[in-house]
Amino acid sequence: MKIRKTMLALAVGTCLCAAAETIQLPKPDADSGVTVTQALKARRSTRAFSEREIPLETLAGLLWAANGYNRPDKRTNATGLNKQTTEIYVCMKKGTYRYDAKANALVKACDVDLRPAIADWQTFAAKAPLALLIVSDVSDPVYAKKWPTLTHYDAGIVSGNVYLYCAANGLATVCRGTMDRDALKKALNLSDKKILHLNHPVGFPVAK
Amino acid sequence: MKIRKTMLALAVGTCLCAAAETIQLPKPDADSGVTVTQALKARRSTRAFSEREIPLETLAGLLWAANGYNRPDKRTNATGLNKQTTEIYVCMKKGTYRYDAKANALVKACDVDLRPAIADWQTFAAKAPLALLIVSDVSDPVYAKKWPTLTHYDAGIVSGNVYLYCAANGLATVCRGTMDRDALKKALNLSDKKILHLNHPVGFPVAK
Repeated sequence: MKIRKTMLALAVGTCLCAAAETIQLPKPDADSGVTVTQALKARRSTRAFSEREIPLETLAGLLWAANGYNRPDKRTNATGLNKQTTEIYVCMKKGTYRYDAKANALVKACDVDLRPAIADWQTFAAKAPLALLIVSDVSDPVYAKKWPTLTHYDAGIVSGNVYLYCAANGLATVCRGTMDRDALKKALNLSDKKILHLNHPVGFPVAK
Repeated sequence: MKIRKTMLALAVGTCLCAAAETIQLPKPDADSGVTVTQALKARRSTRAFSEREIPLETLAGLLWAANGYNRPDKRTNATGLNKQTTEIYVCMKKGTYRYDAKANALVKACDVDLRPAIADWQTFAAKAPLALLIVSDVSDPVYAKKWPTLTHYDAGIVSGNVYLYCAANGLATVCRGTMDRDALKKALNLSDKKILHLNHPVGFPVAK
């Protein structure tokens, strides 16, 4: 009997965990109407954030802009040799999720709020509801053999897209290279073949 | 008399050269009206170009999007540590020019058409009227000491802006890492402290 109860508890636990493991994203939010030129004019790095949560539709749009599909097999962001090895992690209070672009979903990677592993988080971004981590998989030998810095360009392109999406949608962001990479890689169980390039705190700006 | 004639010829020559040394760019072209979302949907790499020349207003807009000023001391493109060491060279049939963002001008760097130094130029982009070269100056010791790959991210962000500007303005482009860096650096008289990151052939797409 005790065993059956335990099994039930485990099963329930599994179900509950499973429910929280994946967040299906809504269709990315509608076009903001802001043009590329207007977004480029507004593009800036901001280091002060309000506590206001980012609507899931907006997050879906942000992730699509960063690394989503705009064709069946191609992305909004160019990648060197079309390798498409870039991954985006979303660090939030409730845990850290990996963006599954094909499924338009967030897949839980870690229960822990990893935002404090980003350098100076408490001093400049403590209120930002989320931070994106831009990661590349360099297990393809072409990187080590011929193009060791190729994915750095990929990450920069993603960062540029994040900046322009934020500028077009009234979001504040800043691109940063400083973070506790060891802690983040350990928490996210990332192999040595993953490079943690950049992070992007994102939130609404502080009301003026 | 002969000397005076020679001096005159030299003077005229100097004047003619001086006139061609700098091309004042017009105000960047008006807003295309295409939104960030529409541009992200249209963003792609294209390797076929028509011979149609790019209007100077459009080139001015492209360069502004890539690396122009959107505030008195800040740019459309973020740079690591706000170093703003990125430079854009424009390779054209009539020679190669450096984009002077502050002056909104092209300053001649070399009389030679350097486009063929871009790998496979003849096979895929021979008709493209121009190619941008994305270059970083890494003479600041912070790069060698702490951030050897920081400007790679900077170059990626510029590339992303070029892609989105092209997508918004009906231009074709592709980002490439392969080129004869030695030949280009020699022709442009670039020191060892300059990194030639990426090139971007740009033109109008082939009519369908």
